[in-house]
Amino acid sequence: VKFYDCSSAPSPRRVRIFLAEKGIAVPTEQVDLRNNQQLSAEFRALNPQCTVPFLLLEDGTGIAEGDAICRYFEETHPEPPLFGRDAKEKALVAMWEIRAMFDGFYAVAEAFRNRTPGLKNRALTGPRDFEQIPALVERGLARIGIFFATLDERLSETKFLASGHFSIADITALVAVDFAARLKLSPSGEQKNLTRWHAEVSARPSANA
Amino acid sequence: VKFYDCSSAPSPRRVRIFLAEKGIAVPTEQVDLRNNQQLSAEFRALNPQCTVPFLLLEDGTGIAEGDAICRYFEETHPEPPLFGRDAKEKALVAMWEIRAMFDGFYAVAEAFRNRTPGLKNRALTGPRDFEQIPALVERGLARIGIFFATLDERLSETKFLASGHFSIADITALVAVDFAARLKLSPSGEQKNLTRWHAEVSARPSANA
Repeated sequence: VKFYDCSSAPSPRRVRIFLAEKGIAVPTEQVDLRNNQQLSAEFRALNPQCTVPFLLLEDGTGIAEGDAICRYFEETHPEPPLFGRDAKEKALVAMWEIRAMFDGFYAVAEAFRNRTPGLKNRALTGPRDFEQIPALVERGLARIGIFFATLDERLSETKFLASGHFSIADITALVAVDFAARLKLSPSGEQKNLTRWHAEVSARPSANA
Repeated sequence: VKFYDCSSAPSPRRVRIFLAEKGIAVPTEQVDLRNNQQLSAEFRALNPQCTVPFLLLEDGTGIAEGDAICRYFEETHPEPPLFGRDAKEKALVAMWEIRAMFDGFYAVAEAFRNRTPGLKNRALTGPRDFEQIPALVERGLARIGIFFATLDERLSETKFLASGHFSIADITALVAVDFAARLKLSPSGEQKNLTRWHAEVSARPSANA
């Protein structure tokens, strides 16, 4: 098994934190996203989607997408469970994980990728080029504000996002909130629940991953 | 348990097909999306995200997001497994499910919601209004073309999207491909693998759900 990572990128950080929480060490290779190594013929042959994180299994099967990679390790290393313990908690984890990804991480990516000069024509990840759409910067920033408010309200009810237990949803939300800092956006001091949660999850050793 | 559905909408169709494959009957209530019933105070009190599909559990817990609802029923009714059988297949199902959702369903939604006159200011689902962005129509259409090509290539290797077994990834991809028909887009006759798969999954009784 080999894990293709980029230590400076937020998307693979999700997998790194997940592996740290599980205590799993995986042989890792860095992919230099800044110099578009993910678009090289060599990497494209491994992962035609040209994305990291990416996991190569012993039998040559490639697993792209952070959520899918984490689900693989949830099966091979069930403890501690990070996708929920019973039907209800698994559903809540899946719901908040999707929300943290679509409404959080993708909102930040929408604003970030459509305005960063170095990402001109790279507004979407993947093998094809897509031009930046300036209107998506504004939309992305608005969506991040909604995401923070949603988290703050949810975290007034529960210790962690899905339930009383730390889960992949907290990991994805943490990565999204920290990714937003690249746009100089962070939770306001009035968002006390979000601020409390962010301090707690950031204090876990895995957050350094 | 109560399932909130809209029989004319593609997003809850994913859950309907899943339930049909499992042979599960759930008390169901229709939500009239055409008249914005999902934005009513009554429905908003149930699901603040104002989306269907939505599942209300006996204890009052609400589960939004089709993938999360399906994972709940995968736990309560494990047979037949629709999220994979072992670590590798579960990872492949998760990967293709994400791809069918992000690169397929959301690409169609991007083109559809940003150009349909009746969805002015409703370019994104959820409680907040977002204006249509014309450039996303073109981007969405381009992404659908890429999605079809990706499916066709993948289905030259496997019977179903993730493996030799039918899974939630096939359900989501089927719903996405059929949703694209609303934009008058369908697989070309030259995409023989995609055409073969689409005929097969459409012939399953669940496809009528």
